[in-house]
Amino acid sequence: MILYCATSNPGKLREFREAASGGWEIEPLPKLREIPPPEENGTTFEENAILKARYYAAFAREVPVYAEDSGLEVDSLGGAPGVYSARFSGPDATDAANNQLLLDRLAGKTDRVARYVAVIALVLPDGSIRSFRGTVEGEILREPRGSGGFGYDPLFFYPPFGCTFAEVSREQKLTVSHRGRAAASMMDFLNAARLPLDPK
Amino acid sequence: MILYCATSNPGKLREFREAASGGWEIEPLPKLREIPPPEENGTTFEENAILKARYYAAFAREVPVYAEDSGLEVDSLGGAPGVYSARFSGPDATDAANNQLLLDRLAGKTDRVARYVAVIALVLPDGSIRSFRGTVEGEILREPRGSGGFGYDPLFFYPPFGCTFAEVSREQKLTVSHRGRAAASMMDFLNAARLPLDPK
Repeated sequence: MILYCATSNPGKLREFREAASGGWEIEPLPKLREIPPPEENGTTFEENAILKARYYAAFAREVPVYAEDSGLEVDSLGGAPGVYSARFSGPDATDAANNQLLLDRLAGKTDRVARYVAVIALVLPDGSIRSFRGTVEGEILREPRGSGGFGYDPLFFYPPFGCTFAEVSREQKLTVSHRGRAAASMMDFLNAARLPLDPK
Repeated sequence: MILYCATSNPGKLREFREAASGGWEIEPLPKLREIPPPEENGTTFEENAILKARYYAAFAREVPVYAEDSGLEVDSLGGAPGVYSARFSGPDATDAANNQLLLDRLAGKTDRVARYVAVIALVLPDGSIRSFRGTVEGEILREPRGSGGFGYDPLFFYPPFGCTFAEVSREQKLTVSHRGRAAASMMDFLNAARLPLDPK
């Protein structure tokens, strides 16, 4: 379990770490140095400690948190593997096993249309949630091509590029990919929202 | 400004970092691997993304944050430097300048009794605050001794040890020091409180 220590004094941090017990791990507050320090205008140690703790805790609680879910929808498989994309071939699925199972399921099928879908859910400091969706259309090849990317990328042929997502650079993939598009939407939202960096 | 990304997939994390803009920095949620993953039992990407984001955000908001204020109180100086201990000799104070100023102020004084005081303020997940105080009594020498520790340690003579805090190991200092005692009180409280690791 983590405890955030709001100190930039390495001597104090070392002492606190050595004094920790019971499984607690002392971590410096993330990005502490980028937070403008509060004025320590208390007249007692208690006042100063409390004003610093309140101030820095407000920053810690303001950090937005997001998670992403993504997968591949294949039209001729009724949208499978869909939300099961990562565990298509079982609980200990690997990319290779998933890719092979997809090829097996598509054996003999001529409709190879598929799309990658990514959804990002973002929890804002006030607890509200915003979600952002990105998709990209392609076709499933009959054998893998390329060694880049991950997931179903070696089978995912993207016509505008004339190759699979495993055959392009990460930068190139990101400009059109489901995850790149969902992430861009989130960044647009965040940059327009201008969340207050100052804690309440 | 930080965004916490709740993924343990390094490929996704890399893509998100490359998609970041506007000064946002993507960090993996601290200690993500120690948090038991939620069951992804949604039937859509949105449902799964939202349940993961809510679940991990609850953990991120649960991390207790603390700050500490500490200093030296010298009886014959009316408790100075007190809350000004770190900036005793001015805004750009160094340990050496502070120690010299203390010696100057005490020149000719025979009462050299002093105590270190540390107060830790801890902000709990529910926003409530607990504070923990530790003190240690000693005497201010007429010249510094030892190269360990920091702050006023080379001048702070601790009679039970027969030497200054700058002449003992960090471990030894911590067993009796103001900060060690305040930290031990906080750890006792936390270990007895058994904060729930499971988010609400």
